[in-house]
Amino acid sequence: MLLIGEKINSSRKQVATAILERDGAYIRNEAETQASAGAHFLDVNAGSFAEQEAECLTWLIDTVQEAVELPICVDSPNPSVIRSVLPHVRRPFMINSITLEPARLTSILPVAVDNGAKVIALCQDDGPMASTTEQKVSLAERLVQASEKHGLPLHDLYIDPLVYPLSADASSAMATLDAVEEIMARFPGVHTTCGLSNVSYGLPERKLVNRTFLTAALTRGLDSVMMDPTDRYLYASLKAGLLVAHRDDYCMEYITAYREKRL
Amino acid sequence: MLLIGEKINSSRKQVATAILERDGAYIRNEAETQASAGAHFLDVNAGSFAEQEAECLTWLIDTVQEAVELPICVDSPNPSVIRSVLPHVRRPFMINSITLEPARLTSILPVAVDNGAKVIALCQDDGPMASTTEQKVSLAERLVQASEKHGLPLHDLYIDPLVYPLSADASSAMATLDAVEEIMARFPGVHTTCGLSNVSYGLPERKLVNRTFLTAALTRGLDSVMMDPTDRYLYASLKAGLLVAHRDDYCMEYITAYREKRL
Repeated sequence: MLLIGEKINSSRKQVATAILERDGAYIRNEAETQASAGAHFLDVNAGSFAEQEAECLTWLIDTVQEAVELPICVDSPNPSVIRSVLPHVRRPFMINSITLEPARLTSILPVAVDNGAKVIALCQDDGPMASTTEQKVSLAERLVQASEKHGLPLHDLYIDPLVYPLSADASSAMATLDAVEEIMARFPGVHTTCGLSNVSYGLPERKLVNRTFLTAALTRGLDSVMMDPTDRYLYASLKAGLLVAHRDDYCMEYITAYREKRL
Repeated sequence: MLLIGEKINSSRKQVATAILERDGAYIRNEAETQASAGAHFLDVNAGSFAEQEAECLTWLIDTVQEAVELPICVDSPNPSVIRSVLPHVRRPFMINSITLEPARLTSILPVAVDNGAKVIALCQDDGPMASTTEQKVSLAERLVQASEKHGLPLHDLYIDPLVYPLSADASSAMATLDAVEEIMARFPGVHTTCGLSNVSYGLPERKLVNRTFLTAALTRGLDSVMMDPTDRYLYASLKAGLLVAHRDDYCMEYITAYREKRL
């Protein structure tokens, strides 16, 4: 199970402020706490800064890499931003994200291939959002085909079927769970990943919905997640979910988390 | 979703003491709190009292029925105990449980049919316990056939695929989840139910495992559960699970639980 730490994202006010003020101590602390909480990659995003995105992202990447050994997940929809920060990024790394929109697909995918990077690929094209399982799996199939065409190994492809807010589409979580299961079955070697916060948008007690969705997804084969590994209840749900999903031999991960007082 | 309140069970020390001392106030309180927490049936069990089981169970049933209007789930593996308490039980009611063991099947099933009772039927016969999905579904099929033969309507049949402790069989939760899904798909009209505490036996933080298993089962179609409806975290997980499983139109149940401060 690959954990991508989500906290260094400029959509969070404290992170945006830290970037503006070049507060390296704050960012290093966010990197270190996520690393010691079990993240395998650290997402870095400076998307709120528009014209300054590349400059801010470069500073973020340098700062995070000073603090921890963990690989980076470069988070931008903008191909030129991704290309411009690349000289600063240690290998291996991950790119978040491509879609089937031609501009992102054809300019980012080759960069990933050339650099041996893993890629998060969203089930999204130029059309309306994919709400049914069938639509999500069909987009996943096109992402797999594009990856093969460009020479990205399928084990470097992390498909996100994109869950939408249950407050707007009550069927979205089930459609996504079924899509995860079908994608994992139909495209051996490929990974699935997911952000959690969309699912609960507009609802009260959002974290409860997020962790409920995560545990259900673990029983369908989801093998990566973008999350806050320092959220104790979410982390406990992750470990319990892996246990229930028969992905924790001899209950060792679960018992270790208990001994570390993280359940 | 049918909630069967599990708390009036003589395997709980306080309940056994209340039965011994004929402490009606304690039992009535257990009945009332479960009723107001949302139980639809109340399980009553006096199985710890061996020779006195029928007498104790009769007293329990009378006491619970004085306190609440909720229907009873008569919990005993002993056909003669079930028959002897029947004159005390208001209609409708439920019987917990039959198995494919001939003594229980052929003596309890006709009692249920004659009395229009619902029946919990465990995926268990005289052989070793069913650990795989295939074995569980095969036993479920035999339970469906027996019900049809005896004239029990399938909508009165609540099949429990029986989850076993993950500490002994790490695959048991997934085998059970897959069995729930397959049973609901193959036998239209039939219900599935489950006790939750077995899954976590021998592990720390058992309630976390129980509620994780429950929420995953809700996304597979489980439509009844034996649980403690007064356990706030479990109840919150139930509501979040139904929401994620697309079984809560317009998020109304979830939002109601939030307003009642039960999330």
